Amino acid sequence: MSILEFKNPYPSLPPTKVSLLHTSKLDATALANIGFFSTVDRESTHILLTDSNVAASMLDELKDMFNNLRIKIHPVIVVPGESSKTIQAYTHVLDACADVGITKESTVIGIGGGVVKDLSGFLASTFLRGLNLVLMPTTVLAQVDAAIDWRHSLNLPHGKNLIGSILAPAEILINAGFLKSLNDRWIRDGLAESIKIALCQSPDFLTLLSQANPSDFTWLCRVIDISVSEKIVAMNRDSAPDQAMLVYGHAIGHAIEHLAEGELGHGEAISIGMCVTAELSLLAGLSDELTLKAHYNAFTAFGLPTIVPDKYDLHQIWSVIRADKRFRGDKMCAPAVKTIGTLVADGNGKCFLPFGAEIVIRALELNKSRGKTIGKFVQN
Amino acid sequence: MSILEFKNPYPSLPPTKVSLLHTSKLDATALANIGFFSTVDRESTHILLTDSNVAASMLDELKDMFNNLRIKIHPVIVVPGESSKTIQAYTHVLDACADVGITKESTVIGIGGGVVKDLSGFLASTFLRGLNLVLMPTTVLAQVDAAIDWRHSLNLPHGKNLIGSILAPAEILINAGFLKSLNDRWIRDGLAESIKIALCQSPDFLTLLSQANPSDFTWLCRVIDISVSEKIVAMNRDSAPDQAMLVYGHAIGHAIEHLAEGELGHGEAISIGMCVTAELSLLAGLSDELTLKAHYNAFTAFGLPTIVPDKYDLHQIWSVIRADKRFRGDKMCAPAVKTIGTLVADGNGKCFLPFGAEIVIRALELNKSRGKTIGKFVQN
Repeated sequence: MSILEFKNPYPSLPPTKVSLLHTSKLDATALANIGFFSTVDRESTHILLTDSNVAASMLDELKDMFNNLRIKIHPVIVVPGESSKTIQAYTHVLDACADVGITKESTVIGIGGGVVKDLSGFLASTFLRGLNLVLMPTTVLAQVDAAIDWRHSLNLPHGKNLIGSILAPAEILINAGFLKSLNDRWIRDGLAESIKIALCQSPDFLTLLSQANPSDFTWLCRVIDISVSEKIVAMNRDSAPDQAMLVYGHAIGHAIEHLAEGELGHGEAISIGMCVTAELSLLAGLSDELTLKAHYNAFTAFGLPTIVPDKYDLHQIWSVIRADKRFRGDKMCAPAVKTIGTLVADGNGKCFLPFGAEIVIRALELNKSRGKTIGKFVQN
Repeated sequence: MSILEFKNPYPSLPPTKVSLLHTSKLDATALANIGFFSTVDRESTHILLTDSNVAASMLDELKDMFNNLRIKIHPVIVVPGESSKTIQAYTHVLDACADVGITKESTVIGIGGGVVKDLSGFLASTFLRGLNLVLMPTTVLAQVDAAIDWRHSLNLPHGKNLIGSILAPAEILINAGFLKSLNDRWIRDGLAESIKIALCQSPDFLTLLSQANPSDFTWLCRVIDISVSEKIVAMNRDSAPDQAMLVYGHAIGHAIEHLAEGELGHGEAISIGMCVTAELSLLAGLSDELTLKAHYNAFTAFGLPTIVPDKYDLHQIWSVIRADKRFRGDKMCAPAVKTIGTLVADGNGKCFLPFGAEIVIRALELNKSRGKTIGKFVQN
């Protein structure tokens, strides 16, 4: 087991501990001495927030584990998927917490994917004006990216992540053993965030990613460990490219994900978002064709989608992009990759660059036009 | 005009500026050079959050003022009263913000009483994961207490202030001129928080409070200025008694306010809460009869209620107290006044003391039993 730390966004508060512990089953003995599990208040009841998929596959085992550790938990189970990243779901979990008599000594333990992490984080930030937060991510997406964060967001009908809070988790436990019930599609979906990290800051990592397959457990553990440590390096350094890297491809990807209404996973949507952003970068003269091809290649190699689905009108996509948190005036502000491993920076060192409707829609069109010939394009 | 500052709860972030500017009317010229009004982004649209009472009496004037200052505002008007401190009201204002196209450069300007302050604060903390917050309180309660805060809370059906956030306002503008449309009941209601400050930390201030009447505008301005500066001293010092003082009488007062469903103002409810807490303190041997009488005297002098209304069952009050954020195990944790100006501290210097059901219910009974003879009690 290795333990990493990332800094608290509020310098006077303690950092987040991330334990990388890849075991095939939950083991109370192994956990008993890890920070939270040894220090948590044994008198209070703690909220175990999860979704019904995770509950079906591991709630009994989790209950046994917390029971063995003499930690009192009250499970709160939400519907899987984005519908639990809403004010309605938040209201439901608030009621559950108020019903069970939670105190300031209680912890919210979020066990699930990105949605459970966001709902747990927003709940912990706001219930009684702030509780401890512990995360045990159970999807590749959450293990390599979503859970390694202090930002927690809910969606509004107008767009994704429009409300949110800042709270550094006390502890994050990464265990690839939790992924065993995940099917292949969702493992690949999560790896889109690892590819994002590689495209933005590490050509070597991109090479490693291209060399193996997601069903090899040892390879998967290694990719998770590298993704987590690369992301933590970026968060601790916190430079302009580091901040921008976190949301590469997301302005366009989020809009596509919003319009897909659950048909596309987050990783699938941002794969398309990154490919369109690479088109945009080339169109704007910020990048080259080799970098563009490397994008299509990387995602295609993992069977991830790269082309905007035909059914979405491009102006409709643009109108959803306008709800992005970083939209300014009439411009989308987003990072672009210059060459693999390096983001474009402007004269002031800033990595969020403004792109207007016209060039974004042309990039979307170019991406769509490659739909039928993408195999040929990436091979040439 | 004087300008005070209170520290940010996150030491790396800037303090809050509090301008005390008592003018009879809104004056764009006078405001033009004050921090926010001179520096706010002129391109973005800002949310002016208020309630329909304030809107009826000053929205036109406010619009003219912001127009003269070339600050673009979008008014969002909520229902007056506690029903706007709910998730439902929050959802309504979120929709309004998302509809109008708010950006990270936008400010939430909360103009109203304590409820508008809390809703504005929670909105600013969470919309786009955090916007600037400016407060212009329009009630005595908000000017002397509620607005001078970085804590923002909403109620749940289970109890008051069960969810909330921490965000230091960028700027608070205190203007007793905003109080002119307030009737006498609500001026007195607000002064309950000034009496709280005096009982907990300043016998001299209690003397000043007893010497005049709330309809004297000059006296009122002076009381507001002293209340604000006493509270800011306590916030900046942030010792155990300072933290405890802020919520003196509130554990019991909030429960009564919750049960009153709008029939009692916050100040009226905490006046009763402080009197019951003084009974509790005497019962527990922590205080003396002189201190108890000073409580009943101070509130009675301003026509504030001091006795738990007959219609509330005492066990029902206790069951609502259990939802208090600081309730631990089977104990209410609350501060008590030892002698006027001094809180009780335990052997470890802590000022939140545990009180069980039995003694709290006896204190409530004792308070009720004084109902008919309160005049006689305070005179003896």
